[in-house]
Amino acid sequence: MKNTDMENILQQVQEGNLSIDEAKTKLTPFHDMGYAKLDHNRQDRTGFPEVVYGEGKSAEQIIRIIEALKEKTNRVLATRIDSEKASIILESIPDLTHNKDARTLFWRHEDEPTYLYNGYVSVVCAGTSDLSVAEEAAVTAEAFGSPVKRIYDVGVAGIHRLFHYLEDIEQAEATVVVAGMEGALASVVGGLIQNPIVAVPTSVGYGANFQGMSALLSMLNACSPGISVVNIDNGFGAGYYVSLIHKNTQTEG
Amino acid sequence: MKNTDMENILQQVQEGNLSIDEAKTKLTPFHDMGYAKLDHNRQDRTGFPEVVYGEGKSAEQIIRIIEALKEKTNRVLATRIDSEKASIILESIPDLTHNKDARTLFWRHEDEPTYLYNGYVSVVCAGTSDLSVAEEAAVTAEAFGSPVKRIYDVGVAGIHRLFHYLEDIEQAEATVVVAGMEGALASVVGGLIQNPIVAVPTSVGYGANFQGMSALLSMLNACSPGISVVNIDNGFGAGYYVSLIHKNTQTEG
Amino acid sequence: MKNTDMENILQQVQEGNLSIDEAKTKLTPFHDMGYAKLDHNRQDRTGFPEVVYGEGKSAEQIIRIIEALKEKTNRVLATRIDSEKASIILESIPDLTHNKDARTLFWRHEDEPTYLYNGYVSVVCAGTSDLSVAEEAAVTAEAFGSPVKRIYDVGVAGIHRLFHYLEDIEQAEATVVVAGMEGALASVVGGLIQNPIVAVPTSVGYGANFQGMSALLSMLNACSPGISVVNIDNGFGAGYYVSLIHKNTQTEG
Amino acid sequence: MKNTDMENILQQVQEGNLSIDEAKTKLTPFHDMGYAKLDHNRQDRTGFPEVVYGEGKSAEQIIRIIEALKEKTNRVLATRIDSEKASIILESIPDLTHNKDARTLFWRHEDEPTYLYNGYVSVVCAGTSDLSVAEEAAVTAEAFGSPVKRIYDVGVAGIHRLFHYLEDIEQAEATVVVAGMEGALASVVGGLIQNPIVAVPTSVGYGANFQGMSALLSMLNACSPGISVVNIDNGFGAGYYVSLIHKNTQTEG
Amino acid sequence: MKNTDMENILQQVQEGNLSIDEAKTKLTPFHDMGYAKLDHNRQDRTGFPEVVYGEGKSAEQIIRIIEALKEKTNRVLATRIDSEKASIILESIPDLTHNKDARTLFWRHEDEPTYLYNGYVSVVCAGTSDLSVAEEAAVTAEAFGSPVKRIYDVGVAGIHRLFHYLEDIEQAEATVVVAGMEGALASVVGGLIQNPIVAVPTSVGYGANFQGMSALLSMLNACSPGISVVNIDNGFGAGYYVSLIHKNTQTEG
Amino acid sequence: MKNTDMENILQQVQEGNLSIDEAKTKLTPFHDMGYAKLDHNRQDRTGFPEVVYGEGKSAEQIIRIIEALKEKTNRVLATRIDSEKASIILESIPDLTHNKDARTLFWRHEDEPTYLYNGYVSVVCAGTSDLSVAEEAAVTAEAFGSPVKRIYDVGVAGIHRLFHYLEDIEQAEATVVVAGMEGALASVVGGLIQNPIVAVPTSVGYGANFQGMSALLSMLNACSPGISVVNIDNGFGAGYYVSLIHKNTQTEG
Amino acid sequence: MKNTDMENILQQVQEGNLSIDEAKTKLTPFHDMGYAKLDHNRQDRTGFPEVVYGEGKSAEQIIRIIEALKEKTNRVLATRIDSEKASIILESIPDLTHNKDARTLFWRHEDEPTYLYNGYVSVVCAGTSDLSVAEEAAVTAEAFGSPVKRIYDVGVAGIHRLFHYLEDIEQAEATVVVAGMEGALASVVGGLIQNPIVAVPTSVGYGANFQGMSALLSMLNACSPGISVVNIDNGFGAGYYVSLIHKNTQTEG
Amino acid sequence: MKNTDMENILQQVQEGNLSIDEAKTKLTPFHDMGYAKLDHNRQDRTGFPEVVYGEGKSAEQIIRIIEALKEKTNRVLATRIDSEKASIILESIPDLTHNKDARTLFWRHEDEPTYLYNGYVSVVCAGTSDLSVAEEAAVTAEAFGSPVKRIYDVGVAGIHRLFHYLEDIEQAEATVVVAGMEGALASVVGGLIQNPIVAVPTSVGYGANFQGMSALLSMLNACSPGISVVNIDNGFGAGYYVSLIHKNTQTEG
Repeated sequence: MKNTDMENILQQVQEGNLSIDEAKTKLTPFHDMGYAKLDHNRQDRTGFPEVVYGEGKSAEQIIRIIEALKEKTNRVLATRIDSEKASIILESIPDLTHNKDARTLFWRHEDEPTYLYNGYVSVVCAGTSDLSVAEEAAVTAEAFGSPVKRIYDVGVAGIHRLFHYLEDIEQAEATVVVAGMEGALASVVGGLIQNPIVAVPTSVGYGANFQGMSALLSMLNACSPGISVVNIDNGFGAGYYVSLIHKNTQTEG
Repeated sequence: MKNTDMENILQQVQEGNLSIDEAKTKLTPFHDMGYAKLDHNRQDRTGFPEVVYGEGKSAEQIIRIIEALKEKTNRVLATRIDSEKASIILESIPDLTHNKDARTLFWRHEDEPTYLYNGYVSVVCAGTSDLSVAEEAAVTAEAFGSPVKRIYDVGVAGIHRLFHYLEDIEQAEATVVVAGMEGALASVVGGLIQNPIVAVPTSVGYGANFQGMSALLSMLNACSPGISVVNIDNGFGAGYYVSLIHKNTQTEG
Repeated sequence: MKNTDMENILQQVQEGNLSIDEAKTKLTPFHDMGYAKLDHNRQDRTGFPEVVYGEGKSAEQIIRIIEALKEKTNRVLATRIDSEKASIILESIPDLTHNKDARTLFWRHEDEPTYLYNGYVSVVCAGTSDLSVAEEAAVTAEAFGSPVKRIYDVGVAGIHRLFHYLEDIEQAEATVVVAGMEGALASVVGGLIQNPIVAVPTSVGYGANFQGMSALLSMLNACSPGISVVNIDNGFGAGYYVSLIHKNTQTEG
Repeated sequence: MKNTDMENILQQVQEGNLSIDEAKTKLTPFHDMGYAKLDHNRQDRTGFPEVVYGEGKSAEQIIRIIEALKEKTNRVLATRIDSEKASIILESIPDLTHNKDARTLFWRHEDEPTYLYNGYVSVVCAGTSDLSVAEEAAVTAEAFGSPVKRIYDVGVAGIHRLFHYLEDIEQAEATVVVAGMEGALASVVGGLIQNPIVAVPTSVGYGANFQGMSALLSMLNACSPGISVVNIDNGFGAGYYVSLIHKNTQTEG
Repeated sequence: MKNTDMENILQQVQEGNLSIDEAKTKLTPFHDMGYAKLDHNRQDRTGFPEVVYGEGKSAEQIIRIIEALKEKTNRVLATRIDSEKASIILESIPDLTHNKDARTLFWRHEDEPTYLYNGYVSVVCAGTSDLSVAEEAAVTAEAFGSPVKRIYDVGVAGIHRLFHYLEDIEQAEATVVVAGMEGALASVVGGLIQNPIVAVPTSVGYGANFQGMSALLSMLNACSPGISVVNIDNGFGAGYYVSLIHKNTQTEG
Repeated sequence: MKNTDMENILQQVQEGNLSIDEAKTKLTPFHDMGYAKLDHNRQDRTGFPEVVYGEGKSAEQIIRIIEALKEKTNRVLATRIDSEKASIILESIPDLTHNKDARTLFWRHEDEPTYLYNGYVSVVCAGTSDLSVAEEAAVTAEAFGSPVKRIYDVGVAGIHRLFHYLEDIEQAEATVVVAGMEGALASVVGGLIQNPIVAVPTSVGYGANFQGMSALLSMLNACSPGISVVNIDNGFGAGYYVSLIHKNTQTEG
Repeated sequence: MKNTDMENILQQVQEGNLSIDEAKTKLTPFHDMGYAKLDHNRQDRTGFPEVVYGEGKSAEQIIRIIEALKEKTNRVLATRIDSEKASIILESIPDLTHNKDARTLFWRHEDEPTYLYNGYVSVVCAGTSDLSVAEEAAVTAEAFGSPVKRIYDVGVAGIHRLFHYLEDIEQAEATVVVAGMEGALASVVGGLIQNPIVAVPTSVGYGANFQGMSALLSMLNACSPGISVVNIDNGFGAGYYVSLIHKNTQTEG
Repeated sequence: MKNTDMENILQQVQEGNLSIDEAKTKLTPFHDMGYAKLDHNRQDRTGFPEVVYGEGKSAEQIIRIIEALKEKTNRVLATRIDSEKASIILESIPDLTHNKDARTLFWRHEDEPTYLYNGYVSVVCAGTSDLSVAEEAAVTAEAFGSPVKRIYDVGVAGIHRLFHYLEDIEQAEATVVVAGMEGALASVVGGLIQNPIVAVPTSVGYGANFQGMSALLSMLNACSPGISVVNIDNGFGAGYYVSLIHKNTQTEG
């Protein structure tokens, strides 16, 4: 809360222009933390999605949460929903879109536009076994309003496939690179383009892969700058992050 | 290289409007990789900085490299330059700006504007011992054209200090959060603002800190979304990354 | 055993005032180890609970042990009892209180007071997924006689919720902080209050979480003093520990 | 800040009994965070020590800080001061007490009592090589007002020495156990007494000791309850923590 | 093979006193490797057991192997046999002795003595959860001919129980100490007796136990000498090793 | 030793055609181990180099060893010789070739050909900081008789440089790829060529690089087949290995 | 693409001897990357096998892929096919050869020779529990055209068995050594022979084996040169690699 | 203390045959712990050595300790004494024997026999770089009274050298095997002989050696039984342990 705002409120109280109850509401710490704005935005129908993390929640719990959120907001995303749970939930809430690969459920109010921003972000992945994490990133970015160009199965074992799509990646506002095993794809893409890359190591692989540690270390040590990293298999985090970058590109124009 | 471009070139050859030598130059792979553009840009005086990584190079080598780069570009940044080397280099090239904390040397052509973008990025750090990494991030972002708001010494052990600056952080285009020890600051900032955060774990600490592993894992596991991570002590990478995001915000307008 | 005590016993033997058998009992090493006192206390009906670690024991074994303990003591706590085992045990011993989240069974003699100490300890946890460990801590502290104030779901991703409860935490004799993922909550609470905190890292999370290693390292490296740490997921240990501290606050008055 | 307090202040403003400036001071967020109390206490001459972490600071910086603190408070503790720095500082501020083993400097106002609490805490260590960490814990607890009973060189390789001192440990309000190598001492003491133990793993040892990891894991996995752990070599943290527990025992009486 | 032996054989061949076939048998490399002696011993009925590692073998395979070994030797030990497999095997070979805790099957020829050596070895374990590994060690030592004194459930959380049995441990030829969690028992026993100790870390525990790593590091760093370590949960290795030491004590008399 | 050979020797002894001493020489185990052949070859002047590992040896020791080897063989290679030692050694043995980057000394008899095999092997490295390890590999392969094509500074951050040299790499009999940081170069080369690659991770890098662990894991998990790995910084091992492969290609012709 | 080739194409275009479409095909980047050759070879019936990685694919998917590949190539290898999947696949494609131990399916066109190269490679393994990985290596090498000599169960616990087969190993073009536990076999074989060894650590073992980490580190640190390492349990990679070496030995003759 | 002993003492007190002071001495806990016997033995001149761990102690401290011990015992061993300290100490106490490789100082009273036991132990090491640890083991065993047969430089890279000495190793009462790098020597020796082996991993090596972790894991996972392990570089512990085993072999005769 800015100093002058507080002075203002107190003056109104002193002058009798503001009731004590109203003043209390204005002065409670959440207001001066910049956080409540988000809450207010969310209670309005702004299209900013609410997210439900499905792991460890029962289908029944998820149904209740999604139904409550649909009352309050225009976009609802649920992640980490396995096929079995998804089937049960879809029986109760048939207007959800289920992406089996991404393990997501998504709902958008009929008045809500599909996308919120111009341009697009891209999601690049190395192999078909990284598909699930890549789709989680893509669906998340879409849920947050970004058009997404998917460029899959372009791992460095057949690097020529990557070059086909270089121009598409170059023109994205930001790019998610998903790769397991040795995670080299992030470095290679990072050496070829200049837009921000969010790298997602996956736990795909075996042997001395250590549940994704190999790709994680590889990406943190990438010799190309312009790469930042999220947690292993965290497709949601990466999709959210590129959409944040994407949103920022719109605010200046 | 786009399909139509290649067709175009070949047609000109066929029609005798383009010599074989000229066609060869246009068709060599580097041109169709989107990489050479950068090189060409760099050879022009565009203000895009060239970067010299100082570790493991002698003062003499660095002097030679910087002098060569000054001929070709308008901005030169050298990182990881300790005080002793800096003194020697400054004797030869006195128009460099030396930032002792950041361990950087920077040069900007007199015709070159200080900043290239509107708005600013912020660099937040937890303790005074994270200062060196934070400054490396800040100086790098400035070298790449971003105004920087520095918000230092706001670690979670005295979290009220952080709240003072929340509005400044909230309004930055992107924010670098630098923290050692348990790295909690990234999560806390991430829970309060909605713009992209690049977290830099530092190797500051002792005991079961493991040269920054503790802060690195903490940041990768941050419970707030909107956080991505670069390598331990990699202030340069973080500064470069927020400036990339910042640059993107300008291109749409 | 103090020197003068032994001399005393021997003198009584020499003077014929103590039989050899009685002397032997008094002189056996356990008596002078300060440990037997506990045993004696426990055999009396003092309310000090006996604890049964349920993991790896069959329902039948646990029933037998609890029944034996009920004969000897006024409070019995069993931990790590999954729902299935709990059902079987409750059929045999219906006067046990089952806490499903904490995975505990508890019994208190009807003459035994609910709480043994004035004041209270608090148990704070970051997210609903830490609930099980937090409840284990809370139930344990209650079993050992401490009133407990539970403050749940106040993780740093929404730090304003924490501030609501700060006064309650500040006034507790000691506080358990339970958090998974990056464990930042311990540092944040530690930066705000001055009473002893026992931090419990949980194995909640995924990716580079390494079964709680991330939160453990974070808590050990907490930048706020006044924090000590117990093993990953060790709610019992934390609840026991804060109750020990709580008991100590009563002994001086 | 409690709801009723805020209402109270606003009412006084409304009624003209409180100036806007005074109201602003009372309403700024720090006041309702429970943190400022500490600051106020510290600005008074209450004997609560200010602590200076010496590592990475020059002797000159430390002198300036200590001199400033002596103006504001009655007790000043500086830790991690090596012998060389200590000599320089002592020349400027000769009334500091230097503990070479603990690597500490301490100052107490002449009107300030040596100890603040009844009873004592104990510091137990395994070998002479753990002495430095043990002394840091002991001096810290003393600086914070706790009398300390030191019980050194009672490692489990000669466990009979420990039994001599068991009664002393049993009667302490809380106990620090410092041990390197396999850290077994914490478990053994924890199996013999019932008061809270704070275990400090030290980096003493060689081979598969991994800079204290061996003792750290050992202490976290201690089979006796009633043990919590601080970071490797963190004597300060342990001393501070037992003094916190000790202080709590006085407040109820 | 000693030089003179080879000369001897060749001389006999030269002199016609040894057939070429006999000479070949004597000269094949295995004979001069000291290894064949064992083989010969084993083919005789000497009581030296053959050992079958059961993990990963089907009940049928194990039956076939044991039946074959019973033809050739007087003692057969099978380890890592779970209860289900044991039942199947016992139906085919009912004269096996099944130890359910140790997960072993053992057979001894009726003419074979129970024990082969005077004196005894001891097997000490910390808690009931270490029982399985301890029994594997004990049964193995017995199978190799050593009488075994079992001293179980004497962990350091109740160290007085250990002292009861100290004299028994002191008089054993060698001692196996089995402990999980922090593995402190090995150090404590090692500080009290002077005979060789073989420590077996177990994977018992949870949290930062890392499948026995905690106890393993603890035992390797034991501050008492006279302790060597075998692999985590390797009761067989420890039992075999103490029996080897035991056998050696008999050979000099 | 083959069965028929032994029979042959014994028959000659029986028939008096071979003296006992001669038979003994033929029958000693080393002869039938395939190892002595190497020794014999080495004692002849075959050009097969003897290798001296310089680390931990004094200049004087190395001089003595090299001088002795020059008597017995035609090629001598010494590795891990720092510049200071090299100067001292060169004063005594001026006909050694010193490679400062590779930290090697090499000597070849004047009658000995420079190379022993047709074709060549290639050594590829990512950055100038990998130069030392790459040169150790190259010099080693040359010392063992392989012509070497060096292709340096072709890291994936500027992948177009690599494509220039692809044909050279493709036509090598085997290729060493040296890379630090994230080690992605091995995967990229492995995806482009079909001849055997030996990858050498280097300890170059910082932060979460862990002395080469990052590159090591990356290379072990390379998504391209046709890559095997040697120890971190082990340029010698890689050079030796490709020369072994190279030698094999000659033996069939 | 060589410079002269491009000039050639352009000249033909200029002279009208090559249509623009044909020129475009010849100039697309894949052609000058040396990669397309492989593709072309593969599309011809050359016997070079296509490989299907079965893990994570359904039997139905594998059937479709194998059937497609059989149309295009003469050799098809599928790895990581468990018994259940293999049965289903064999019902559809009965002319596949199933190796249960190796978990492979293999098909060779009736006109295709069994082997492609003279000489052989050898696959050596330590224990029967390494059999599956060893067979994967052996079957892979055979699929790629190399005759394979299998030498199994020759671990160092009974090293004399190894010496029997030394000559066979010595004469192989290259050797795969498969070993779990401590992986010593690679060093021992490496000390005895001079041909290239590819070591495969297996995850066989227990305790401080860490899923093959123990054998992996052991092999990377082998004191004998001439050993390179592939990922844990990566029998396919090793078999492919020795076959690559083998193929190279044929190309010079 | 046995029950009957205590009864006996008390009876004597009752009957007036034992003074209270004498009874107290007999009853103090140390006497019934089996530990004091050692102390008494040590105070007699029995030849059992006292050991001084030199690391972290000054030359002056060591001189004082050794001089004190020479008064009380017949054998004094000091370990981890670097050359510089040794020179200073030898000036004061010239009758010490200094072993530069082992970094030990040893003194034996002139009346004391060189060895205390029949037979011998052997110390085997892989390479010359393991010499220091091997010598520490050998000197320690000698100090404790065991004749030692040293068998050095018999690593598996040249395994034939080991076979020369097999009979010597076979006939030792116990054997220390010292090896760095991959530590395979322990397994190989363990597969060839049947007496107890104590393996000492050394920190010799580089790359993925991790300060001896590689050899440690290798030895713990040795596929041959009859091997136990001490800490990395712990030559003292191994020498002490084999001498303990050796002593036991004498006590039965």
